[in-house]
Amino acid sequence: MTGSANSTALLTDHYELTMVAAALAAGTADRACVFETFARRLPDGRRYGIVGGTARVLEAISRFTFGPDELRELAEREVVDEATLEWLADYRFSGDVDGYPEGELYFPGSPLFTVRGGFAEGVLLETLVLSILNHDSAIVSAGARMASAANGRPMIEMGGRRTHEQAAVGAARAAYLAGFATTSNLEAGRTYGIPTSGTCAHAFTLLHDSERDAFAAQVARFGPDTTLLVDTYDITAGIETAIEVAGPSLGAIRIDSGDVGVLARQARAQLDSLGARNTRIVVSGDLDEYAIAALRAEPVDAYGVGTSLVTGSGSPTAGMVYKLVEVDGRPVAKRSSHKESRAGRKAALRRHKPTGTALEEVVYVTADGQPQRGEHDRELVVPMLRDGQPVGAPPTLDECRRRVRDGLVSLPWEGLKLSNGDPAIPTVYQ
Amino acid sequence: MTGSANSTALLTDHYELTMVAAALAAGTADRACVFETFARRLPDGRRYGIVGGTARVLEAISRFTFGPDELRELAEREVVDEATLEWLADYRFSGDVDGYPEGELYFPGSPLFTVRGGFAEGVLLETLVLSILNHDSAIVSAGARMASAANGRPMIEMGGRRTHEQAAVGAARAAYLAGFATTSNLEAGRTYGIPTSGTCAHAFTLLHDSERDAFAAQVARFGPDTTLLVDTYDITAGIETAIEVAGPSLGAIRIDSGDVGVLARQARAQLDSLGARNTRIVVSGDLDEYAIAALRAEPVDAYGVGTSLVTGSGSPTAGMVYKLVEVDGRPVAKRSSHKESRAGRKAALRRHKPTGTALEEVVYVTADGQPQRGEHDRELVVPMLRDGQPVGAPPTLDECRRRVRDGLVSLPWEGLKLSNGDPAIPTVYQ
Repeated sequence: MTGSANSTALLTDHYELTMVAAALAAGTADRACVFETFARRLPDGRRYGIVGGTARVLEAISRFTFGPDELRELAEREVVDEATLEWLADYRFSGDVDGYPEGELYFPGSPLFTVRGGFAEGVLLETLVLSILNHDSAIVSAGARMASAANGRPMIEMGGRRTHEQAAVGAARAAYLAGFATTSNLEAGRTYGIPTSGTCAHAFTLLHDSERDAFAAQVARFGPDTTLLVDTYDITAGIETAIEVAGPSLGAIRIDSGDVGVLARQARAQLDSLGARNTRIVVSGDLDEYAIAALRAEPVDAYGVGTSLVTGSGSPTAGMVYKLVEVDGRPVAKRSSHKESRAGRKAALRRHKPTGTALEEVVYVTADGQPQRGEHDRELVVPMLRDGQPVGAPPTLDECRRRVRDGLVSLPWEGLKLSNGDPAIPTVYQ
Repeated sequence: MTGSANSTALLTDHYELTMVAAALAAGTADRACVFETFARRLPDGRRYGIVGGTARVLEAISRFTFGPDELRELAEREVVDEATLEWLADYRFSGDVDGYPEGELYFPGSPLFTVRGGFAEGVLLETLVLSILNHDSAIVSAGARMASAANGRPMIEMGGRRTHEQAAVGAARAAYLAGFATTSNLEAGRTYGIPTSGTCAHAFTLLHDSERDAFAAQVARFGPDTTLLVDTYDITAGIETAIEVAGPSLGAIRIDSGDVGVLARQARAQLDSLGARNTRIVVSGDLDEYAIAALRAEPVDAYGVGTSLVTGSGSPTAGMVYKLVEVDGRPVAKRSSHKESRAGRKAALRRHKPTGTALEEVVYVTADGQPQRGEHDRELVVPMLRDGQPVGAPPTLDECRRRVRDGLVSLPWEGLKLSNGDPAIPTVYQ
């Protein structure tokens, strides 16, 4: 229910519009501005962040237009005056955007998404840019920690029920970026082409006169290569029934409660003793990256992850800000408090050891020229929009997913520790 | 981007569809079922919860239909078979819903939203019901703690940039329910008729050649009854300039950084000395219910609240579940672990002292009859849908908002403490 015609323009803070109105009246609306999106710090104790949502932001900017419905709303509420309404009716972002490609690692101060254009056209995008990047980055960042803890075992995203119904779709996309194998969310399947999966809940077992009847119904419909949920009543009896019904070629069992480590070991032994050596064990139920790491030594074949993923595992927002850093070529910054920003349009390169391990994030003011770049260093900022138009074809979701994986490989070893710590590499300002 | 035609049907977990397919094949899809939505516990340390999102759920259910686009998606992905697709094409929820009115207090086990109908038609709604209730309730519950801490001073919701762009709209609605005066979110204004507000960010000051120029531009456009943001450079100088530019009838100043308590006191003294005795002081910047409570003794006139509100102040999801509790009149429940549910369709009444203070939440199985009801007790569950159709006109957002306020007044004194504790009243099962 965004209202009319797919416009994203009202997914915006009231004050972006009043600033446009005041700047238009003052004749300052067209001053050439640079707005920079960055995180002052990583969420508490996190060692890295991962940029998520970039493609969604670019797509949302392309729909950031004020149609008759949006203009009527602004007029009726007297948010802005007639002159501003006329200006808005013609609005289409026509500036430039540069930033970190989606899936890239980021650290404090990394210039993730830089918007250049007139003040009014740039300030209007603040809320939407931050909403998407803050949400999606929080989830990709949490998901990457889980992927790293899972160490190659597949993970299934199933958290849609624990977050806003539309955020669920974005969360499923972010989880896939982070390395999750599938999602339960059908809309994410439709919108982003992500593989979806799912079989049965406890309700299905309870619906039937017996667990055996329920399993039989499921196997009758989906064949033995399905996943039977065995913990509705007694897990040992459930596994026995499951193999009796489906035979030893049963695809998988799922355990959703209890001490899943102990239960997985018992289940593995029982399945093996029943000849079901290839039946996989899927565990779910309040898993986060710590629980997943704790299950590394257990015979678990896949993890279902819900709440902790979609809520960013304790950090539901990435805390990024969108700050004006340059006006008509003049660097600007707020300077009343600890909330200071660094003035001037910036870019960044990441230094690496010859082995490929990241060493430091060098953030520099572009007007001062690029710092000396070593053989193993990498420029991080790429052009995304020029005069409002996309630069080249956007990377696919799978390319961004590989970028996440490659980024994790490039982190120094401490960077992958789940415990609280400092950023894995320092940010150096030049 | 939900895809086609406003349908909410794919905002759903894959397994809801596979369960429908298997139940259709097994002939169990039409068994009369009762699904109950409740929270096993409140978020850590919380003393009460508040139901949010009920009207949004009912509206979303009315759009839960499978059109050609949704059916094609399910067919192409082979989520379900042809017979199920035919059944889905005709799907419209035609059962009954009963629950707590939106804005009502809830406690562990409170039967908040009960769906009765055939298994298949009821199970399909699980994901969507939970997504909305878990998100909105988390935010109303956090917002009510803030409202209670603010003790009548107005609060402005400005957290849209810290959450998913569509969740932001739901969050603004939830904040209004909780007692917030206005939101920054324009789409929430359009969709729900909530008052919106906003004036200027630091970027507007930085855009201009001086703070004075920026203030002059804002006052020229919006008159002296505006809010000037005074902390871009030096707050004392900023206030002086603000009054010079706008005169002593300036509407308000906003302080967004620093130790806002100390700064508010200094600002009040300075404003008074400049004759601006009616100029209000708005503070913002990482406020949560604890920070708001700490500012009670300070001369603050309004609070702007962002991140902590939209992320549920540490509890971004309410953790509600949707459980099958009855099949063909037979009570059912999972029973393998601590995650047990109580079988049977339930209702609830809340007992009160003659003074109106709540005493206990009595949750009872309806088949066993209503417990004795005292003069001051109140039945909590009301009918919402019958045969899929709304029962009466839904309450307005303002009515639900009053319900939140009345609920907070009815809590025992300890229930309003912000510190961690037990639920304000016990849940008694009968």
